[in-house]
Amino acid sequence: MLDAAERLFAEHGVGEVSNRQIGQAAGQANNFAVGYHFGTKADLVRAIVRRHTAVTEERRTRMLAQIKDPDDPRAWIACLVRPATGQLDALGVPSWRARCLAQFDTVPSLRQIVVEESVATPSMVRTLEGMFRLLPDLPEEVHRERGDMSRLLVVHTLAERERALHERPDDRHASWDATAAGLIDALAGLWLAPVTARSVPG
Amino acid sequence: MLDAAERLFAEHGVGEVSNRQIGQAAGQANNFAVGYHFGTKADLVRAIVRRHTAVTEERRTRMLAQIKDPDDPRAWIACLVRPATGQLDALGVPSWRARCLAQFDTVPSLRQIVVEESVATPSMVRTLEGMFRLLPDLPEEVHRERGDMSRLLVVHTLAERERALHERPDDRHASWDATAAGLIDALAGLWLAPVTARSVPG
Repeated sequence: MLDAAERLFAEHGVGEVSNRQIGQAAGQANNFAVGYHFGTKADLVRAIVRRHTAVTEERRTRMLAQIKDPDDPRAWIACLVRPATGQLDALGVPSWRARCLAQFDTVPSLRQIVVEESVATPSMVRTLEGMFRLLPDLPEEVHRERGDMSRLLVVHTLAERERALHERPDDRHASWDATAAGLIDALAGLWLAPVTARSVPG
Repeated sequence: MLDAAERLFAEHGVGEVSNRQIGQAAGQANNFAVGYHFGTKADLVRAIVRRHTAVTEERRTRMLAQIKDPDDPRAWIACLVRPATGQLDALGVPSWRARCLAQFDTVPSLRQIVVEESVATPSMVRTLEGMFRLLPDLPEEVHRERGDMSRLLVVHTLAERERALHERPDDRHASWDATAAGLIDALAGLWLAPVTARSVPG
């Protein structure tokens, strides 16, 4: 049933899909099956987000233990990105997970659930601490903006890559590994970029 | 009718909205009004994208003429970003345009239309030439990846900002001007970031 929900949310958007459609797509005769198993839509979203948390946590914890140069921001950013790309790689083609998470990200209440379940984990907290320690002192507003831009960049780059693999499954010329490498360099550039002085908003 | 289409596409996604719904939302009695005026969905998308092209081109042409330091990549990146944020600012709250363009961006055939209509314009060609001239030599694949990441970052940052303004219209504490400033620094960082050597994809 979670597979069906992930696919329908990815394809149609989270506001466009009813519990009834998810139940039908999962071959449930009972129209109330989804509500019975998962309660509210928020509970269903949480169940979807949690599906791979244990594996991702384990991957990241292992990567953190193997960091060779803790003064290179990219070492920490890699721990942020590669557990996610590694998991998408393991899901094979087609997967809908990255596109489903991109849909959740557009709804503030659901985005909050994703943050609670996949950013507030022990390995992520350590990763972000390690990375932020190496950054220049940023004004609070700029720090928050760059956090938002990083999230959007990762979420939508992974979703677009997943969609391209789905629509052209033979186009393996860019691997998840290369996607991760490109994202890590881009995020390092984004966080380390000098801050232009800005006028006070009117 | 274009207003109605922009709003419906922004809220529900471009695949979820029929010509009939757009006609109804625009108060057209005739179910075929949208098809009659715009032809295919691709034609409708092109008409939406073109709505502000003339104003945006004019803004950018004026900005290009006023560049003070042509050796600063951020001067060119500003010409890329500010005509778009300035136009969204002029639309007021609520607008649906940034979210509508973000929906188009997820459909490769419609993304192509947006690129043709708003990236292949004379002022954009000059802007990109000016900017790329200042970048280190990037491998072709990295150049393409960074182009894609820049597009995703701009498109989704503007869409998320528009949604936040719509849902909390009083929250003016971050202006479109500040959004532009944050994006310009982030894009400069992204394009100037060193490229980590990557293994050949297996």
